[in-house]
Amino acid sequence: MPTPPLANRLHHIEPFRVMALLARAKALEAAGRDVIHMEIGEPDFPTPPAIVEAGIRALQAGHTSYTPALGIPLLRQAIADFYADHYGVAIPAAQVAVTPGASGALQLALSALLSPGDEVILSNPTYPCNRHFIQMFEGVPIMVDVGPAENYQLTAAKVAAHWSARTKAVMVASPANPTGTLIAPDELDRIGQLCQERGAVLIVDEIYQGLVYDGPDRSVLSSHAGALVINSFSKYFQMTGWRLGWMVAPEYMMPAIEKLAMNAFLSPSAPSQYAALAAFEPDTLRLVESRRQALRARRDYLTHALLALGFDIPAPPQGAFYVYADARRHTRHAEQFAADLLEAHYVAVTPGIDFGGPGADQALRFAYTTSLPRLQEAIQRIKTFIDS
Amino acid sequence: MPTPPLANRLHHIEPFRVMALLARAKALEAAGRDVIHMEIGEPDFPTPPAIVEAGIRALQAGHTSYTPALGIPLLRQAIADFYADHYGVAIPAAQVAVTPGASGALQLALSALLSPGDEVILSNPTYPCNRHFIQMFEGVPIMVDVGPAENYQLTAAKVAAHWSARTKAVMVASPANPTGTLIAPDELDRIGQLCQERGAVLIVDEIYQGLVYDGPDRSVLSSHAGALVINSFSKYFQMTGWRLGWMVAPEYMMPAIEKLAMNAFLSPSAPSQYAALAAFEPDTLRLVESRRQALRARRDYLTHALLALGFDIPAPPQGAFYVYADARRHTRHAEQFAADLLEAHYVAVTPGIDFGGPGADQALRFAYTTSLPRLQEAIQRIKTFIDS
Ligand SMILES: Cc1ncc(COP(=O)(O)O)c(C=O)c1O
Ligand SMILES: Cc1ncc(COP(=O)(O)O)c(C=O)c1O
Repeated sequence: MPTPPLANRLHHIEPFRVMALLARAKALEAAGRDVIHMEIGEPDFPTPPAIVEAGIRALQAGHTSYTPALGIPLLRQAIADFYADHYGVAIPAAQVAVTPGASGALQLALSALLSPGDEVILSNPTYPCNRHFIQMFEGVPIMVDVGPAENYQLTAAKVAAHWSARTKAVMVASPANPTGTLIAPDELDRIGQLCQERGAVLIVDEIYQGLVYDGPDRSVLSSHAGALVINSFSKYFQMTGWRLGWMVAPEYMMPAIEKLAMNAFLSPSAPSQYAALAAFEPDTLRLVESRRQALRARRDYLTHALLALGFDIPAPPQGAFYVYADARRHTRHAEQFAADLLEAHYVAVTPGIDFGGPGADQALRFAYTTSLPRLQEAIQRIKTFIDS
Repeated sequence: MPTPPLANRLHHIEPFRVMALLARAKALEAAGRDVIHMEIGEPDFPTPPAIVEAGIRALQAGHTSYTPALGIPLLRQAIADFYADHYGVAIPAAQVAVTPGASGALQLALSALLSPGDEVILSNPTYPCNRHFIQMFEGVPIMVDVGPAENYQLTAAKVAAHWSARTKAVMVASPANPTGTLIAPDELDRIGQLCQERGAVLIVDEIYQGLVYDGPDRSVLSSHAGALVINSFSKYFQMTGWRLGWMVAPEYMMPAIEKLAMNAFLSPSAPSQYAALAAFEPDTLRLVESRRQALRARRDYLTHALLALGFDIPAPPQGAFYVYADARRHTRHAEQFAADLLEAHYVAVTPGIDFGGPGADQALRFAYTTSLPRLQEAIQRIKTFIDS
């Protein structure tokens, strides 16, 4: 008897292409090479000390049991308070769900909304997991090509043009991965309006909230109380490995979200939740703000340096920690370029093909998740590579 | 415009009925009542100190970044070694996937296997999440009524009788939740044989592995190398709130499992993984063994005490930490009985209806996840309640 066939959904779900490159980078490192990592979507800063200490205290105090499925009440309230203090938005703690990362929040949101065949409109390029979560629950991702003209973000006109009777949700990420661009508030308002009029849910991934370098940092909740917001302690609070995120969802969805959370996850990590309480303390907020400024300096340096090397940066990155560059002056095949750059000069970057969209074949994502001196060293190596 | 409708799958997925009771128990406690918790599926023992200390060291060492999607190689190897040392089975570390709890493992296994309409045969009663995970991925749970005659476990004959062209997997849990029963090795062999002949996957949930009080503790892997095994650090190692489990899967499934894991979870918790390395140290193993003996003493006490109170225990519990009792001598509606018992005497137990199966309406699950003196106190209170 042959092995039982796997699920059909696996035909649509791709592994990240960068994984092969990452494995090769690790192998080179193991062989003693000095690899500069610009492929990784996590900050090089360690978790803020106050959070680590709160985590240690939580372990010492024995906070190692299951918690309520939507998180401990204290943390749900602290997240609600954060919206009040920083964005001037009143969110009831009952509409906050604490989740295993933004990943867990995306999963709950999409499994709560999508019946097989339901459509979700999202931008192309996009963070690849978004498309895959939709397919995991038998929904259909409607990928809308976006480019520099619209800052790599959806527009209300494009959303309207792709609307169908099966449209169930529209997904926006701002700041976005891989481009670091923001959506214009009035454009987001128009998309929210459209969703409300036609009966779909506006999902906004705000996981890079706080990591904004030009203009004010906002939440869609300040203009669209009915939006479903995805967020995380991973990026702004540098807690990737702790696996903790959250969601703010419309009230009517909460019983469904809770039911799914108790079945899918039982509970988020208990020590991580107690640790995260320290994220909102003044000392931690001061520290992450100083790190944001360091990231801005890196962005400024990297943007200029890449332009000087002949890369094109069609839409200036305003947030997150990515520069999405067009490499067509140097290659017609960015994935090969990335592999060769790693092999020859030990600099790891992510090929655009992982994110899709027009020109992905010739695009590269540079993450500035390493120190300024390392970025300078990387630029030297890339220059040598290009000139050779 | 009305709110957008939720996913159809929500019609099939139920919240745990015990949650309302748990909320009421917490409210009573907040009002100063002394509630005895026998409804909770987690040991009252704290996480073993060596694991907690390893967790603290991991945080101090800055192990707070994403890890590989299938877990850190050290832990995958340690789990493989555990099978070799304790069950005499050789498992390549490459076939071990570390997951966010057994919950994460169940999700990966079922999303890797099920296309819409695919069927999974499982016992009724069962751990309710199993049925719900199947429905989450648009599969069809084929619930097979089982009772005391077959020790509340599937038999090969019953599996064969429910087989169809859409059968994709058969799920067994041993020791089982809610009954604590084991499946007979030869019966499991016959089911495994059937799966192999007809091209389906045998999934065995061994999350209560190690917590066996009569007869030897085994793994299906010692007789069926092709089985997919679900396991966890939650129960035997008392790490529920850390959210860490694992899966051993057939080699051909590993690329699919990895692809799904990187998209759904990115990685399991980093500090939890480093902490779990201490689970396999001799000191920890000695401690969990002494706790197993304490659990056995509790089981012996509780079984006899419940029988003496007129409860029927149709199949003797041999593992896990549950006694599944038939309460028909005291009530025709166990959920009401449980609610009244809590209200009047502050003892919380789980109604059978959460697990389904014949006689569920008159069944109660008593978890012996509290100390012997507390169990004795609970028995006194139940006696008073019944006699009143
Ligand atoms: C846009 C976006 N959403 C969600 C996530 C998920 O992150 P996490 O699960 O760590 O919160 C990421 C991680 O890179 C991301 O870039
Ligand atoms: C039979 C069974 N499987 C799986 C689980 C999931 O546990 P976890 O996700 O904590 O490993 C449980 C928890 O109660 C269970 O009883």
